[in-house]
Amino acid sequence: MNTKLIDTQALEAALEDFANARNWRVHHSPKNLAMALTGEVGELVEIFQWRSEQESWQVAQLPETAEHVRQELADVALYLVRLASVLGVDLNAAIADKMVLNAQKYPPLPS
Amino acid sequence: MNTKLIDTQALEAALEDFANARNWRVHHSPKNLAMALTGEVGELVEIFQWRSEQESWQVAQLPETAEHVRQELADVALYLVRLASVLGVDLNAAIADKMVLNAQKYPPLPS
Amino acid sequence: MNTKLIDTQALEAALEDFANARNWRVHHSPKNLAMALTGEVGELVEIFQWRSEQESWQVAQLPETAEHVRQELADVALYLVRLASVLGVDLNAAIADKMVLNAQKYPPLPS
Amino acid sequence: MNTKLIDTQALEAALEDFANARNWRVHHSPKNLAMALTGEVGELVEIFQWRSEQESWQVAQLPETAEHVRQELADVALYLVRLASVLGVDLNAAIADKMVLNAQKYPPLPS
Repeated sequence: MNTKLIDTQALEAALEDFANARNWRVHHSPKNLAMALTGEVGELVEIFQWRSEQESWQVAQLPETAEHVRQELADVALYLVRLASVLGVDLNAAIADKMVLNAQKYPPLPS
Repeated sequence: MNTKLIDTQALEAALEDFANARNWRVHHSPKNLAMALTGEVGELVEIFQWRSEQESWQVAQLPETAEHVRQELADVALYLVRLASVLGVDLNAAIADKMVLNAQKYPPLPS
Repeated sequence: MNTKLIDTQALEAALEDFANARNWRVHHSPKNLAMALTGEVGELVEIFQWRSEQESWQVAQLPETAEHVRQELADVALYLVRLASVLGVDLNAAIADKMVLNAQKYPPLPS
Repeated sequence: MNTKLIDTQALEAALEDFANARNWRVHHSPKNLAMALTGEVGELVEIFQWRSEQESWQVAQLPETAEHVRQELADVALYLVRLASVLGVDLNAAIADKMVLNAQKYPPLPS
């Protein structure tokens, strides 16, 4: 059983292999990867910019945007996981810690 | 054994519970989440903007930035996974497909 | 003599005419324009992401990027000025006020 | 009479003086300024992320956001103009050229 909130281990290894096979290690400084992440988020946001909130719910179902949004989500994820990886940050631990902080900052409504 | 590149299942469930316990479902349209993702990426980028590429390698080790960068990476991850989740996109499948496309677009160097 | 730090009056009028001639007024909510601005900044950042700081100085001179960077800078400017305009914000006054704040926050070095 | 679409001359000079008086020239590489621009756009977007399109029209009038949005618009403008300036790009000419391209790409509706 996988008890992590998120498990990126296989992806981190795959991205390391991918970069090494192309001599990209030298380009993948954290600073550059943060910029690449920005660029991909920009492409993701462009899908939503002229759509209403209501329309935005359909983006992954509509034929004209379904594949596009999948690809842009993937691109953002790839650079995010790669950035955490080259920085040596355990993304799962970071997320777990942040969710504790968020729960303190935003207490749940009384049930 | 977990054979996925990335496994976000537990995190998606935790984020859904977190949002429901605060009546945030109504705010979490894909359009809004894409904007929130942008905001968090902006905060992450700010850590790197005045540092050189060489300095950027130390960001997760230096006491003055280590915790900050962990938190911003987590925030970006939280909104990214939440966005994929509300859109109904299988992030692992999207990533696997995109890595095939990337390998075609950027063939490895001859060994 | 123009004593403003920045004068966007003619551009604001041109953008208003441009939008009206295409029935774009309805799409140009501040929320949407903020997203469009994000998208254009993402495209601008992509020009710099794999270049070193030193290389980045040449971007507007090199034939392969000169026209591209001009266009992306223009796109960012167009959405920024349009956003301020539809919000009714006097960008010159906002800038003048902010520069006073910045000068207080970051005093000049002793000469 | 000022016949430019946008006039940034006085602001460019003020920003150059401001940077020189603080020895910031060395930090203001185009790559770094593009990142700083991203960070400021992120802060601007955060104002809009949980507001509806309709609510977004009021952001510059509501007491709780009016000053904030003015400051963030100013910050984005400052880095954009500074970036164009250090790159040696004539922002007015770039905008004029881009608007011609936009008019070709998106012809006006028949009147």
